[in-house]
Parts: sequence; C-alpha cells; structure tokens
Amino acid sequence: MNVQEVVRELAQRAKEASRSLAELSAQKKRRILVEVASGIKQAAREILRANEKDLRLAQRTGLKEAMADRLLLNQKRIDGMARSVLEVAKLKEPVGRVLATWRRPNGLRISKVTVPLGVILIIYESRPNVTSECASLCLKSGNAVLLRGGREAFHSNRAIVRVYEQVLRRHRVPTAAISLVRVLDRRGIDELLRLEDLINLVIPRGGETLIRRVARHARMPVVKHYKGICHVYVDKDADLEMALNIAFNAKCQRTAVCNTMETLLVHRVMAPRFLRLIGEQLRNAGCEIRGDALVRQYLPGVKKATQADWSTEYLDNILSIRVVRDVDQAIEHIQKYGSAHTDSIVTQNRKTAKKFTSQVDSSSVMVNASTRFSDGNEYGFGAEIGISTDKVHARGPMGLDGLVSYKYVVHGSGQIRT
Amino acid sequence: MNVQEVVRELAQRAKEASRSLAELSAQKKRRILVEVASGIKQAAREILRANEKDLRLAQRTGLKEAMADRLLLNQKRIDGMARSVLEVAKLKEPVGRVLATWRRPNGLRISKVTVPLGVILIIYESRPNVTSECASLCLKSGNAVLLRGGREAFHSNRAIVRVYEQVLRRHRVPTAAISLVRVLDRRGIDELLRLEDLINLVIPRGGETLIRRVARHARMPVVKHYKGICHVYVDKDADLEMALNIAFNAKCQRTAVCNTMETLLVHRVMAPRFLRLIGEQLRNAGCEIRGDALVRQYLPGVKKATQADWSTEYLDNILSIRVVRDVDQAIEHIQKYGSAHTDSIVTQNRKTAKKFTSQVDSSSVMVNASTRFSDGNEYGFGAEIGISTDKVHARGPMGLDGLVSYKYVVHGSGQIRT
Repeated sequence: MNVQEVVRELAQRAKEASRSLAELSAQKKRRILVEVASGIKQAAREILRANEKDLRLAQRTGLKEAMADRLLLNQKRIDGMARSVLEVAKLKEPVGRVLATWRRPNGLRISKVTVPLGVILIIYESRPNVTSECASLCLKSGNAVLLRGGREAFHSNRAIVRVYEQVLRRHRVPTAAISLVRVLDRRGIDELLRLEDLINLVIPRGGETLIRRVARHARMPVVKHYKGICHVYVDKDADLEMALNIAFNAKCQRTAVCNTMETLLVHRVMAPRFLRLIGEQLRNAGCEIRGDALVRQYLPGVKKATQADWSTEYLDNILSIRVVRDVDQAIEHIQKYGSAHTDSIVTQNRKTAKKFTSQVDSSSVMVNASTRFSDGNEYGFGAEIGISTDKVHARGPMGLDGLVSYKYVVHGSGQIRT
Repeated sequence: MNVQEVVRELAQRAKEASRSLAELSAQKKRRILVEVASGIKQAAREILRANEKDLRLAQRTGLKEAMADRLLLNQKRIDGMARSVLEVAKLKEPVGRVLATWRRPNGLRISKVTVPLGVILIIYESRPNVTSECASLCLKSGNAVLLRGGREAFHSNRAIVRVYEQVLRRHRVPTAAISLVRVLDRRGIDELLRLEDLINLVIPRGGETLIRRVARHARMPVVKHYKGICHVYVDKDADLEMALNIAFNAKCQRTAVCNTMETLLVHRVMAPRFLRLIGEQLRNAGCEIRGDALVRQYLPGVKKATQADWSTEYLDNILSIRVVRDVDQAIEHIQKYGSAHTDSIVTQNRKTAKKFTSQVDSSSVMVNASTRFSDGNEYGFGAEIGISTDKVHARGPMGLDGLVSYKYVVHGSGQIRT
C-alpha cells in the first residue's frame, strides 16, 4: 500500500468507528472515561518508560530545553492527566441535547438536536498530555479522533493511547475511535488533509507556521487561531491598583502563551502616574518595554516601538505600550492590530466598558480581568480542545460544545407540502 | 485599478460598513426593513422595467425556458418580495442575544453573546428575489453582504439593491453594507474568494459545478450543499395511505429542487401492495421509475436501476426505488448513498422511528412527513439564506441563527491568574 492508501484506510476506519461512537449512551461513555483515568494511573510506569525513551532520543537530536520540558512526563503530570480525564467524564453529556424545539402551524414538530461532528484530526506538537486531553474530549462528544502528535513524543503518545485502546476493547468499541497517526512526514499529512469526505474537522495546535500550512492544505474546515495579540486597555476611569495588577499579570504570569498581553494601551490622563508604576514593576521582572513617543517621555530610556511592534506576538518577556486619546482610539487600535483572541479593558465606568465589549470584535472581551483567563479550564469547560479566533463554528476557548453539531429532527403525522 | 484592486476595495468597504451594521439597534434595523418593504412596492415599475431589459437580453442569448421563468418578475412576485422583507423585519433580533451566562468560583461572570459574522459573500444564479431575501437577512443579522447574482439578472438586481441603498442612505448607514458585485468574470470571483481577511463566509447557491468551484477556490469558510439525494423509507409499520401521500408528494410536488426525494426505499413486507399503488400514481404523473430486481418483479416493465442511480440527483421526473430487508438496511443505504440533506421515514412504530432519527446522520431527519418541508420558511425561520449539509457551523435550512457567531464577554472585579 502506498501512503495515500494507508492514510485513506486509517481515516475510513475512524469514520466507521465514529458511527459506533455516536450511538454510545452517556452512561457508557462516562464509564469508559472513568476506567481510562484509573488505567492511566496503573500504567504510569509504562508511560514514564516510554517518555524516557522519547527524552533520550530528543537529547540525541538536540532538542531545545523549553521543548524538552514540554515533552517531559513525571508522576505529577500523569496524575494530572488522569484527573483531567475524570473531569471530562463528569461533564454534562453533549450529544442528543435538544437545543430548541417548536411546533409549526401544520402540526410538524421540529427539534434541533446536537450530534457529534464525526472524525476530528488533531495536529499538535510535543506535549503528550494533549494526547489524553483530546482523546477524552472527542470520546465524550462521540467523535472519532486522529491524533497526529509531534514525532518527538511518539513513544509517550503510544503508551497513553494504549490505555484508551484497552478500555475501548473491554467495552467493544472499535479502537479506531482513537487512532495515533503514525505517518509522520508532510506528505502523509497532506494526504490526510485532502480527505474531506472522511474527516469533518481539523484542529492544528502549535506555532503559526504549522497552522498556516494546515489551513492552506486542508479541504475540510479548520479550527484555529494564528496568533494571540492580546491587549489590555487602561481607561481614564480605571482603578489604578487594579490596572497595575491586571497589566502585570497579563504580561508576566506566563510569557510564552497565546493569551498573554502583547500590547498595553493607556489613556492619556492615566499615563503619567500609571506608566511610572507599571514601568518599574515590569523592569523589575526583566520585561523589555517598547513604547511610542509619549511612553518614552514618561519612561526615559525605553526603546521605540515601531509599526511592526503593534502586530507582533512576542511570546516573550517583551511588551509594547501606546498612549491613546480615549477608548475609541483604543478600540481602533485593537481592530487594526489585534488578532481577535482576547482583549481587556480596565475601567470603573460602565458605559465605557459596554462600548468596549460591544465594539471590540474579539472572541473573548474582558472587563477588569486578566487576559490570561481566556482558557477552557478557566471558563469552566473542563478541558480545552483549542482556541478559535474564527467567526464560523466555534469561537474562543473551545470545549465540548465546539465538538458537536446539530441536526433537525422533524416529526409529522403525514404532512405533505402543497 | 486592476481587478485585484477593485475587488479588494469593494470588500474593504463592505468590511468597514459591517462595523456600523454591528452597532445598529434592533429597532433601527426593523425600521429600515419596513421602509425597504414599502420601497420595493413603490419601485415596482422601475424594477419591472429593469427585469424586462434582462429578459430581452436573455431571449437574445437564447436562455432556456426554465431559466427565463426564474428570471421573470411580475407584480405578484414583487409583492411577495416586499412581504418577505416585512417577515424578516418582524423576526426576533439575532444580535446581542445572551446564549448562556455563568459565574466562576473566582467571581468572573462569563457570557456567550451573539455577534454578526462580518461580511458575507453570496454567489447565486438567476432568481432576482434571492437578492432581496439575502440582503434583508444579512441586514437583520448585522452583516454586510456582497451579492454576486447571475449576469442575466443584473438590471433587475440593480433595481432592487437601489431600493435598499435609498433607505440605508436615509438612515445614514453606509450603502456598502449591501453591495452588488459588478465584476462578472471568473477571475474577479476568484480574487474575491482569496480575501479571507475581509470576507467571513461565502454561500454559493446554485448547481453542483458552481458550488464545487467556489469550495475549491475559497480561502474562507463556505456554507453549502453539493446535492440533495433525499430518501423516503417506507417501513413495514407504515400507514399505507400516509406512505403513498408522502412518497408521491416528496417526488412529484416539485421535481427540480434539492429537497425532492430521489430514491424511495421500501420494506420488503410492504413492497407488494405499496409498490403497485405508488407505481400507478407515479406513472400517471409521468414519472420514470428505475428499480432493483424486486421492484421490477412487482412493477413489470420498470427500467433497471444501476449502481449510479443510487447516487444521482435527478432533479427531474425520475425516481429510483429499492426494496430493503429492514430499517437497518435502509439506514445503511442512506449512509452510503445519501448526501446528508433530508431523509424521511414513514412508520407508526416509535422505536423504529427513534432508530432512524438517531442513526441517519443527515442535516434534517423526518418522521411521517414529506422531505419537501426541509426549507427555512417551512421551519419557521422567516426566510432562508441557504441549506448546509456540512457539520461545521450551520446545518440544514439556514436562517438568521446561521448568520451570527458569538463572543465571550467576561466581567471581573480585578481578577488575576495565579
């Protein structure tokens, strides 16, 4: 069999498995996940051994330290993985929910009922716990999943998927419901991305280059966000201390993630006091500041922000700051340079907050809270399959709700159309 | 300016207009639509004159009769157009609806609020009333729309859009909110389909060739259905008379539309009596039947159905019929050959009906009703912007709900993440 055939068969088997999955009762899915959670704990030793193998191989090929840390599993991370599967098990059943139901004058009763999407392909990088997160969310939502993790995590992922397979087998659910994609080269992936008749959705999780490649090649819908250029706007009616806390947290609590603030916008009236205080805090935290002319007036020695800075996702300990005339200019800035991920306003003025939340067209818009909260777990979704900045289908942090579609079920008593 | 620039500017202006639209109050949108409805009636003479021009040109280029009928406007159709705009005006406001709201343990209040999609491109064929339907639905849902109708309807479409423009101008809404795309060649359309940064969704309405072309070239999401291979399955527990009525209506009430039945599946126990009766009805209506071996046994002289027949959308007075062993085989047939549009079961058995509605994975699944009801108006959506057989975003007949997305609005009191 050539690559094309291998890949097609893999997807075909997933499609068939998805039919059985769609029929599983809520109770059975819950039981499977509970057993997977304890299975993961029991298999800790095997998983850790597989992970060591990945780490050894990674060291030989000279993996960066940050990447190695993402790849690393330990007892604590395995416990976390098992706990997260239990959390998903406990979530409300997402399939078969009646979203709306109504009766027509001719007596037809129409219901809008949630259904699984079918087969979901997830393309991700080195973190092996993503494997379990995605597998559990897809199972809970009745979807078959094709998992294409980073090659550097292959053995870890295989050990994790084995736990799922054992439990699925015990419950006579086809193991093709959760498949690790072993075709590891680009050509194989490109073949997968062509199978629009078998795969219903692709979720690439990783750097912008990966996501753009997938979006360009995929024939099926892609749920994605290219970057997270998140803003905090400190309004003239902000509580000063709250603004300092939020701005500092949004930038410094973790710098390399997508919901971190990359640009701080400050109302000109607030600028003199606020900038001096936040400047000191940021400098103490080793954060590089790049500012516009006014910022540099208040914070001497700060580097000049160029046009490019406003549209850069640093993913690093760097922050660009701009002083704005008013909330309108802040909104304009966000519309122009933002990436529709998450933007926050700090203000005590309700009217200004309302204007901000209604005009900023991002997938998450916040008032008096750190952008770092834009996250499936923080939103109470139990787990997160991805974050979408698109307008179609899911938006923002995406949990089970983003993994189902719906169908119309129409009950009649012999109605015909005239 | 070259084509690329012209097209980009058009979309850019629509994008800017979409910002104003998103801010319009429910009341203002309602008022605009009410004025458009009376504007259409007042402009009847101009619209009819423009339509005559289109018809004259069409006759000269030798347009088919069916096409000419679609293109034709008369006073009755114009009244219908105005009435439909009024219907849309009266629909519930779709923007700013709070779909869900909850509070997190840390005090954050999260709401999921509907927002417009932004800019929608609609590519359609000769019916000029589609122009008004789409314009009114997009306006109501706060979306700017780029209308690319068939070139044969250009003058009619322009006359209709003028009515909208006049009302928009009176209310100081940018007329770019509703733009007729005058670039009529393929190259221009291909350019439009590349503008994923400006256009949020494309809806092609027309033949399969058109839709496949759009899906292949579009960089943004496409809402579509390629074909409507709709089935009616007559179960062994069907009421005979109801089954005859539904099957006949599903095929013969209108043959050239997507929700018409193309294949009839009959339970083997029902076959002898049912086939003789429906066979007679269909023959009297001039409908050609193509059947499997058993069908031909009960209905001598019927043409043999080939493999290809099961996956053909005739859009004509032709029907393929197959006798099946049981409901499972009917479901299997639909899964294999159906197009996920609309499938109906006729049965008095609740359990069988439940099995059918849960296992048939089509966008509309019906019990004891004609497939012809799969339609936005029949579902009570007021109007229909398209029908989707995709799993992602909208499914089935698509009204205002399919024209909005949502965002998360998060209210805090200074929460930072730890």
